[in-house]
Parts: sequence; structure tokens; C-alpha cells
Amino acid sequence: MPQPKLRIIPLGGLGEIGKNMLAIECGDDMVVVDCGLMFPEEEMLGVDLVVPDISYLQEHRRKLRGIFITHGHEDHIGALPYLLPQLKTPVYSTRLTQGLISVRLKEHHALDEAELRLVEPGREVSVGAMRAEFFRVAHSIPDAVGMAFHTPGGTVVHTGDFKFDHTPVDGRPTDLAKLAQLGSEGVTLLLSDSTYAETPGYTPSERVVGDTLYRIMAEAQGRVIVACFASLISRIQQVIDAAIACNRKVLVVGRSMQDNVSMATELGYLYAPGNVLITPDELRRLPPEHIAVVATGSQGEPTSALARMANKDHRLVRIQPGDTVVLSATPIPGNEELVSRTVNNLYRQGARVLYSAIAPVHVHGHGAQEELKLMLSLVRPQYFVPIHGEYRHLVHHRELSRAVGVEERNAFILVDGEVLEIAEGGGRIVTKVPADYVYVDGLGDIGHEVLRDRKHLSQDGMLTVVLVVDRETAQLVSRPEIVQRGFIEPGESEALLEQAKDLVEQTLRGKAIAQAEWSVLTATVKEAVGKFLYDQTKRRPLILPVPIEV
Amino acid sequence: MPQPKLRIIPLGGLGEIGKNMLAIECGDDMVVVDCGLMFPEEEMLGVDLVVPDISYLQEHRRKLRGIFITHGHEDHIGALPYLLPQLKTPVYSTRLTQGLISVRLKEHHALDEAELRLVEPGREVSVGAMRAEFFRVAHSIPDAVGMAFHTPGGTVVHTGDFKFDHTPVDGRPTDLAKLAQLGSEGVTLLLSDSTYAETPGYTPSERVVGDTLYRIMAEAQGRVIVACFASLISRIQQVIDAAIACNRKVLVVGRSMQDNVSMATELGYLYAPGNVLITPDELRRLPPEHIAVVATGSQGEPTSALARMANKDHRLVRIQPGDTVVLSATPIPGNEELVSRTVNNLYRQGARVLYSAIAPVHVHGHGAQEELKLMLSLVRPQYFVPIHGEYRHLVHHRELSRAVGVEERNAFILVDGEVLEIAEGGGRIVTKVPADYVYVDGLGDIGHEVLRDRKHLSQDGMLTVVLVVDRETAQLVSRPEIVQRGFIEPGESEALLEQAKDLVEQTLRGKAIAQAEWSVLTATVKEAVGKFLYDQTKRRPLILPVPIEV
Repeated sequence: MPQPKLRIIPLGGLGEIGKNMLAIECGDDMVVVDCGLMFPEEEMLGVDLVVPDISYLQEHRRKLRGIFITHGHEDHIGALPYLLPQLKTPVYSTRLTQGLISVRLKEHHALDEAELRLVEPGREVSVGAMRAEFFRVAHSIPDAVGMAFHTPGGTVVHTGDFKFDHTPVDGRPTDLAKLAQLGSEGVTLLLSDSTYAETPGYTPSERVVGDTLYRIMAEAQGRVIVACFASLISRIQQVIDAAIACNRKVLVVGRSMQDNVSMATELGYLYAPGNVLITPDELRRLPPEHIAVVATGSQGEPTSALARMANKDHRLVRIQPGDTVVLSATPIPGNEELVSRTVNNLYRQGARVLYSAIAPVHVHGHGAQEELKLMLSLVRPQYFVPIHGEYRHLVHHRELSRAVGVEERNAFILVDGEVLEIAEGGGRIVTKVPADYVYVDGLGDIGHEVLRDRKHLSQDGMLTVVLVVDRETAQLVSRPEIVQRGFIEPGESEALLEQAKDLVEQTLRGKAIAQAEWSVLTATVKEAVGKFLYDQTKRRPLILPVPIEV
Repeated sequence: MPQPKLRIIPLGGLGEIGKNMLAIECGDDMVVVDCGLMFPEEEMLGVDLVVPDISYLQEHRRKLRGIFITHGHEDHIGALPYLLPQLKTPVYSTRLTQGLISVRLKEHHALDEAELRLVEPGREVSVGAMRAEFFRVAHSIPDAVGMAFHTPGGTVVHTGDFKFDHTPVDGRPTDLAKLAQLGSEGVTLLLSDSTYAETPGYTPSERVVGDTLYRIMAEAQGRVIVACFASLISRIQQVIDAAIACNRKVLVVGRSMQDNVSMATELGYLYAPGNVLITPDELRRLPPEHIAVVATGSQGEPTSALARMANKDHRLVRIQPGDTVVLSATPIPGNEELVSRTVNNLYRQGARVLYSAIAPVHVHGHGAQEELKLMLSLVRPQYFVPIHGEYRHLVHHRELSRAVGVEERNAFILVDGEVLEIAEGGGRIVTKVPADYVYVDGLGDIGHEVLRDRKHLSQDGMLTVVLVVDRETAQLVSRPEIVQRGFIEPGESEALLEQAKDLVEQTLRGKAIAQAEWSVLTATVKEAVGKFLYDQTKRRPLILPVPIEV
């Protein structure tokens, strides 16, 4: 019997291939790694968030054995509340990750029907004909893992997000021994994090940030306010540690951060001894030099705690001269303007602001080139697929793999939806399955047509042209009515819109406006009015003729 | 007689104070430094460009003696075509700057009535009771100058954009001797470029880029395509120099770049000997290793030459494997996503791509901290105003000024429109004049109301609710008509919109819809429909009731 084929399908990443979801198939079994959400790009107007298209998974649901989560960041767990109710499959993760998943599912009233299964790092579970083995990796959150899937078609190693930090905050580095052991036993395919494949050298240890936070808190005369992601449990631990060492108490601000802190403390992943965490009331009673605040808002998100503080709009914390604010993050591409505005507003209120461009207050959680090479050298895979990166990162990562001995014909760059099939004769991309994105706005999805209209509306506004038509005579009953928004300032619009009405009347004069002809006539009106307004203003509003019979 | 007061008013910068326009007044004379345009921020939907509000200048036009331009970049000259026809005042500049201004004015048919006056670096002109002296500064464009305005109220030095590059491309460094001389004679106020006030050390010389471009062109087996700003004349020169040294010919692509190259060559600021510049026809005949292309599009602008190449959409140049593409620029804040997308698309087509994150292919034109301190130390001003920077840069620059001896009470951070008055007793901010922005869209301006509507439209789309009312009975003649765009997918909208129509009928039932009551009734309809739709979808479209009497 020939060895069963392995199939690898990245299913979600919004430009970062396989970042949020990836499927691995062998024979009758399929597992999914991660189920994250994506943040909308600039032109996805009004979209709250983006989740992977799971139509392929739904179509092959009888093969689906479970979703395996590498760690608890939003871009790896955030789509579970939306997709798990549709997929109804077990979710495997480590303990802290499970805690974070529970918090998210609970918010969406989706916890009760979820089947969450715990796997400790270093242990394995069997699903169908596969064994899934978890191994510890260092990342910017505790309890992160990579996974080895032992299948009849060979062993697939998925690194998750990782770096080789030898002094991580939780004291638990990437499991080198396990990686070396897997390598010795033989790995068919490695899927490895490419986020920082462009960056030479090594990523600095988290330790660097801990030292900086300590120095800042020791030197500051006033309060120290640190902003970071709510899920950056290790960073929150560093803030607490530095605060204790500098005789400061810590106020946690922002609901998502408070929820995560409670959960992580309960599960033993965050250590906040005695009465180091304080309430807003205590904040008011303590002198500034004994206060630290840790808050959400490191990306300048307009409704976050830090952005509200910067806008003098926060319920509890008002920035005062003498405050030191630390943005412990780098801006996500697309957020630079928001972050920059927040920093400027904080300065305007007299704060001193430290951010990664001017002080080592953040390190990221992804390995740089030497670490990626180390991973490749330990695992020594036969086939290699760089994942978690934009196209250019994957190209760089593939070059690194070549440098450490992966054969060129065995390294594949996929895009989302492409199916890589590995059989005894070699690997090749055999087909492409649906892997579009689902845009979530409010309670439902929206599609490309709505987005295209919003784009159009956002550029030059809109005009409604109402045509009241006599059912009997098929003629206009009254002068057309035109209403506009976002096209021209109301005070300046009157003469122009009257001319447009004249034009509509001329265009329709003598024509029978019977219902059967409406689509033609409205197209004519649209074109005539559109051309007239473009000539007058060089703008192209969306024009919406509305004929009504009376 | 007391010494006349000096007044300084930054008038345009969109967050970068005084970057695009600044006024200096003394007695009956006012001069304006620079007249640049700003690029719209993300939330300025549909806006093509932003220019300074000149209502203050118009109000005091009898005092206005001229506009003094420091150099030929868009953010210093780009608003002239829009504002000069209104201000009708002479424009003083160096020769290349004048050439670039002429190109821009000609495009807008505003050249004929313009009064452009030439001032060579090192020379001066008298305007009213002031003398304006130009001194050479190194920047990323040749013929850049700073200015000393000798007024009855004291000498004001404006640095323009500058760095202390000792090996600039045109061999003409910042005029240290003049700065030292001004310092010895006594400078009342220094206005200095703060763009890189956060960055320690010195900015590398342009020479670094020249060396890199040479190495890239020498090593590449295929074509080398360099993208940079059309106005970056020095960079274009470096591309030509490297191409000549590597036996390559150069094709200039992109209309604005071609115009600038012709003009600069004509004026002697660009040296392209013999037949180094080629036509598209010659491009096809030459082997790849003898070709270099210099093109617009380093910011990923969707209609630029490079973005078209990346999208397989360029008329002349199609990317082929073996091409090396160099992005000789850093992304302007807000453009990161566009640039990143362009890079990924170029990789997808098999190009090798070099950009500032991975190779020294760009240096910027602004001095870092040590250069800013050197400027302050040479000029030794009594008063200091950091300009050209976001608020946080100004704060850093003020700290630098303190370190080199400017008294704390003599260093002022202004925002656009604030008037700093310097008299014998000291300086203070006395008032604030209008310094809002003018949003240009197509042929005209738009205001905040239009922008607010576009923002609303872009988030959740819109609904028009048409109500046809009988003039006699004041009752609805027919069922309301509802049309939507950008709110919900058309296929999914029908049931929801029928329910909304029911709701409108219920809301208006039994009410007399006389014209006098329309504003109240439309508000009622808006509220009822808005609440209903939000409950159903958690979206808030713009709702536009249109009542019509028949």
C-alpha cells in the first residue's frame, strides 16, 4: 500500500499566509491549526473584524478531528466565537490558552456548547489516525506551543509563533531537546513562523524589556502608565514585577485586560502577590511615585483606555504633568497614524512618553533570521513551507531554508487556499480551495458589493434623485427631488442641484416612464446627472434614482 | 522709540507645526515662508489634498511683501497653484526651486500672472523694512536654502529643511560660515527643523545611498528599477551616476518625473551626459544588464508607475524574474500598507526587492539630534521656536535647545495659528488666528459637514426613505419606498426593508403630514427606522427621509 498523501491548506491570514488558520489532512483525518481573527485593512470600511472563510472545512466536516490552538493571542483564537458554533468540533489547547478562549467564548455566549480539551506541553493526544504532540515555544505570551502531527503520511511540525528566548518571563524557553528529537526521528514537513524573516540576527530577550521597565519605574518621580495588548500576559507580569521592586502599586485599566488578569491569576500564569493590585479608590489616595497603571491602548485604538486618557476622556485616569507613559508595543501596519496621534496628545498634556522608537520598551515575539535557521537546523525537514508572513517574508524565509540545506524543489510558497500535496514522489500544489475572507459588521457578514458601495460613498458622497411618476400618463407628476449627503457643502449646493433637476426634466421630457422602462430610464438619468456633476465639480458621487408610481 | 515687535505665526502643517507655511511680521511688513500642500489623513475621505487656510494673510494683505520658498518639495511649494492667485504677491526662491514652481504653476495655468523672483544662495533682497538673506543648506534636493530675515525687531533665522551633510550629491553643503557669522552678529530668534529631533546622532550622508546604488547596479544580472519621489533630483542624479559607472542606460518613467528631469537638466541641476537617458523603444532593444529605470511610486501610490508595474498594469515596463527593484524612500506615515502591498506584489512577479528596512537605499534629508544641536550652537539665538515636526518632536527639540543654552522661558512650542510676539521685555503667545485647513476635492473645497457625512456613509452605508404625500389630505399616497447602498447585501435586504416600510407606515399612521410638520416627521421616521435597524443588525446607516408632495 502506498504511503497516504499529506495535504496542507493555509486558510486565513489576510496577506499573512496561514497565520490565522491552516488545515492538515492525511487520509480520512483533518486537523485545523488556529482559528484567529484578522483586523480589517484600511479600505474595508465599517468592517469590525475579518474571519476566515470555512466553507472548505464545512464541506469536509466528517474528516475534521479538531482545532488545535498554538497560543492565546487574538489572531489565533479570536475567530472561535464566530466559527466554532458552525464547526462543532473539539478545541485542543494548553491551560492558559484555554482560559483565554473561555473568556472570549463567554463574551459571545458560546462557551456552553464548546468542547475544550486540555493538552499539557510535552504531552500528546490521538485524533483519528494522527497523534498530535505539543511542545513548548517561547513567545510573548506564556503557555505557547508548537505541534508535531504524527500521521501515516509522515510527521508535520508546526512551530506556531515562536522565538528562542533563553530568558523568557515565565522561565520556560522553547523546547530545544524535543525539536532535536523530532529532527532525529525524521520530519517530513516543517511549517514555520516567517514574521521576522527579513530581520538579521536574533530577537532580543524579553528580559531587556523587564530591565527597562524597572529603570523607568525607579527613576520616574510621578506615575508610570504602561500600555500594552490585553493578551500580553508576560508584559503585564513584567509591569507588576517592576512595580513591586520600585514600591509601586498597580491599577489595571480596560475591561479586556482586567478579565485576562483575573483569569491568568486564577490559573497561576500571573503572579500578583499581596495587595499589589489596587482599586480606583486606592489610586486617588496614593502619592504619584507609588503608582503604576497598566492599560489597553498601545495601538492608539480610539476607544481604548490610553486613547481616552490622551483625549482627557477617561473616567479614572487623567494625565498630569509628571506622568510617564510607556507604549510597550510597535504599531501594527496601518495603525501608525493612530499611535502617533495618541503620543502627541499625551505630550500636549505634559506627559513624558516612551515608545519603541526611542527606548527598548518592547520586544516582539518572533524569531529573527538566525533563530529561523536554528529551527530549520534542529528539525531538518524534508519539505518546508514558510507560513505566518507576507509574501516577501515567505520569500526571505525560503532563501534561509535553502542556506541550511532544504532542497529548492522541496520548499513551497503557498497563498491562502492553495493545497500542497506531498506524496512519495514529491510535493506539488494541486488545487486551490475557497479561502476568501468573511467581513463581520455588527451582527452579520457583508460582502464585496456593500464594501464597494461604501468605498464609493466615502469618496464623493451620494445623491438621491426621486422621480414621482403618474401611473396613468407615465409622466413626471412633479419636479424631481434631489437630496445629497457628503457630496457638496449644503450651503453651496442649491443652484447646482436646481440645474441638475432641470437636466433630469429635460432628459425625461416626452418619454413615457412606464414601469417596464424604469431600468433604462434610471440608467439614463444616472449617466446624465453624473456627467453634469463631474464637469461642474470633478467629483463622482454615487447617484441613486428612485422612481415611484402614484 | 521702542524696538518694533516681532510676530511669528505658523499657518500650515497638519500636525507638523509650521511645516507648510509660516508668517513673520514686523511693523508694517509681513513675509510668508513656504506655501506647501499637505497630504490628506486617513479620515479625510475623498479629499485630494489639503492646503493652508490663508484668511489671516488675506485680511492683512497690505502688509504682505512676498512668499519666500526654502526648497522645491511639494510640501513647501505645492499650494502655490491654489493660493497664489488669491494672494497675488511675489514669490522669492533659488533657481531650481523656481523651475519646480514653474512646472507646478504651468500645470494649473497659473504661471502667467505669477511674479517669480530669483535669489541666489548667499545673496539678499530687501522687502519693506526687512532684508531677506538666503544661505545654502543641504537637504534631499539641490538648491535648498535657509533664510535670515533682518528686521527692525531683530534677526530671525529660518533653517528650512536641513541636515549637515558634508558630502551631498551636488557638492554644496550647509553654509556653516554664514551660520556662524549670523550667530556672531546676534540672532533674536531661530526657527529650526524638528522632523528628526527624536533620533540620536547624525543623519548619514547621501553618499551612503550613492555607494549602495552603485553596488546594486554592479551586481545585478538583470534590470535595476529604482523608485523615488519625482522631486528628489539628487537621488535621480545618483541613479544616473551609478548607471553610467555600471554601463547601464536609464529610462525615466512617470510624467512628473520626466517633467522634473527635463527642467533640472535644462537649468543645470541634473547632469545626464551623452545618450545615457533612453526612450521606451531603446528599452526593448537593450539587454537587461544594461538597463536601469527610475520611476515614481516609492510610496505605493495606486496610480504611480511602480504600483502599476507591481500590478502588471504598466504600459512600458513589465516586471520579469531577474529584475531588481529598489524603493529609495521610507513610507510616509499612513502609507505603510500601500508600500507593503506593492513590495509583496513585486515579489509575486519574481522581482528581488530592496527597501530601506533591509538595505541602505535611502537616507532622509533632516538633521538628527547632534546636527540640531550644532545648528543651535552656531546660531546662538536668544529665542527659539522648533518647527516642522509633530508635537512630540517639538518637545524633544526644545529639550535639545535647553541642553545647549537656550533659556527655558525663551523656547516656545506653538501650534498652527498661535501668534508668538517678541518684544524687548520677552516673548509670549498673544493670540490665535484662523489656521484651519482647506480640503480640496476635485475643483472645489469641502468642509467638515461633508467629511462627517462621508465618514458616516463609509461606516454603515445609507438608506433613502421616500414618502409621497398627498397635498390635499396630508396622508401617504403610497407605500414608502426604501433604497439602500452600502448597508446590507442586496440579496439579504428585502425582508428587512419591508419590515422597515411597515414601521414607517405605522409611525405615520393617522398623522397629518403637512409640509409645516415635515422636519418633525422626518426626524421621527429617522429615529424609528434607525433604532429598528440597529436592533436587527447593530449597524447605523445614514437615514435620509425624502418627503414629496403631489
